[in-house]
Amino acid sequence: MEISRTINEIRRLLGTARQAKQTVGLVPTLGALHDGHMSLIEQARKETDYVVVSIFLNPTQFGAGEDLNKYPKRQRQDLDLCQNAEVDAVFMPGTEQMYPEGYCTTVTVKGLSEKLCGASRPGHFDGVCTIVAKLFNIIGPDVAYFGQKDAQQALIIQRMVQDLDMPIEIRVCPTVREPNGLAMSSRNAYLSESQRNRAGCLYQGLLKGKQLIRSGERNPEHVIKALKEVVNGAGPSEIDYVAVVDPQTLEPATQASRTWLLAVAVRIGPSRLIDNILVDIAGPE
Amino acid sequence: MEISRTINEIRRLLGTARQAKQTVGLVPTLGALHDGHMSLIEQARKETDYVVVSIFLNPTQFGAGEDLNKYPKRQRQDLDLCQNAEVDAVFMPGTEQMYPEGYCTTVTVKGLSEKLCGASRPGHFDGVCTIVAKLFNIIGPDVAYFGQKDAQQALIIQRMVQDLDMPIEIRVCPTVREPNGLAMSSRNAYLSESQRNRAGCLYQGLLKGKQLIRSGERNPEHVIKALKEVVNGAGPSEIDYVAVVDPQTLEPATQASRTWLLAVAVRIGPSRLIDNILVDIAGPE
Repeated sequence: MEISRTINEIRRLLGTARQAKQTVGLVPTLGALHDGHMSLIEQARKETDYVVVSIFLNPTQFGAGEDLNKYPKRQRQDLDLCQNAEVDAVFMPGTEQMYPEGYCTTVTVKGLSEKLCGASRPGHFDGVCTIVAKLFNIIGPDVAYFGQKDAQQALIIQRMVQDLDMPIEIRVCPTVREPNGLAMSSRNAYLSESQRNRAGCLYQGLLKGKQLIRSGERNPEHVIKALKEVVNGAGPSEIDYVAVVDPQTLEPATQASRTWLLAVAVRIGPSRLIDNILVDIAGPE
Repeated sequence: MEISRTINEIRRLLGTARQAKQTVGLVPTLGALHDGHMSLIEQARKETDYVVVSIFLNPTQFGAGEDLNKYPKRQRQDLDLCQNAEVDAVFMPGTEQMYPEGYCTTVTVKGLSEKLCGASRPGHFDGVCTIVAKLFNIIGPDVAYFGQKDAQQALIIQRMVQDLDMPIEIRVCPTVREPNGLAMSSRNAYLSESQRNRAGCLYQGLLKGKQLIRSGERNPEHVIKALKEVVNGAGPSEIDYVAVVDPQTLEPATQASRTWLLAVAVRIGPSRLIDNILVDIAGPE
């Protein structure tokens, strides 16, 4: 496994891979890899010849007062995990590589970026789009892998790729969960054991919402109310949002949408946790 | 010469060129080609194997009340000019190809885009950056060619390419001028003969400024004053800006800059005309 810390170095490796007509898969991460990331790497391994994992704790997607400084860093463990998963190259640039002095360009997906998580994290998705555009231009992957757990992020990146005509396929892979349903996240590391147990309420709430829809409920407000009851019933927490939206527009769901996105963001102790599920409102399951 | 009206078609052509290991040069234009464009094409012909000219009157770089609707269109003549210049492919997409419904992504180069022309054309450079990013992603050129006449545009695109790590070389080619010094521009077509004669005052003013600097003047305000006198002496016109700035930051020039950018935007009759020259304040010339 190669480890590149500079743009020139990773470009040289990719040049060799492409000359050998290998297809390239990219798994972009902030580090602190968990089973969710590993499932993306596994999918990339299956579908592409040369798998690159980027590990870069991107400062521009963190707002003032957010957890940039305490975000978990486990460089040695991350590299071991990549090595064991047969990753071909890890791209681990420093901040000065990615944002040299004078840097002033931003990619914005208007309309989608202000909703849900964007409402409480202004500028977050601009930071995400910009770093992802940079990684795409540096690595030039054929396919890039993102998790469904960050549904809004995946949607916004798909929109960016489509709007800017980037010749890249985006694959969104299923959320990986702890036994109690808690979606895997690097931020779960901040939780105490009792908080972690309690955090299962996000998924339980989503399942409750799905069950209501399955039994015929078509009023999004009723689904939201039931979901909130599950979260509130689990113990002290601060709900950022509970939303039932169209998965393409993120506008409030109507019966015109075939699929509803049930999405939730809750602060439990030190962590802001998010989760979501898609429910096909026409289908039987 | 191939003519492509869709993204898929031009991508197919480029795929063939790249398989044959040809380097690709791109000359992006709004159409209504003139000798300035032809000099870019000629340069691309010299330096790259496969030359693409894009002709797209990009609506997102025109503001409300600007000249989008009356911008000259000369499709037949443009294609003849490209054919005669041995262009390999012309990419002529429709607006619905470039901006399909739901489009919502923008590339912004903050700081540089609000100055000079950006001050009187808000959003203009966002439109330019976004369409150029799209063209770069569609065509994937090795080198792209821009004119020094649009100095701020060239600077902003170089900044975007650097900041987003686009693997593309930007070549900025010298301004081509009419015999009276008027910089070639599609917008010169709006001018009457007397206005066209008078419009020579922009370049005469710039040369006056350069001469002052050569003779030792180091106060930008004095250069600006002399330049304005030349423009105002030529007849009725409305000065948008006359500026002496650092060519990298577009901040007011100081003696710390090795080179000064003298830039001017003037409305003469129906046309807003721009021009500029670079003056090396250290050098002898």
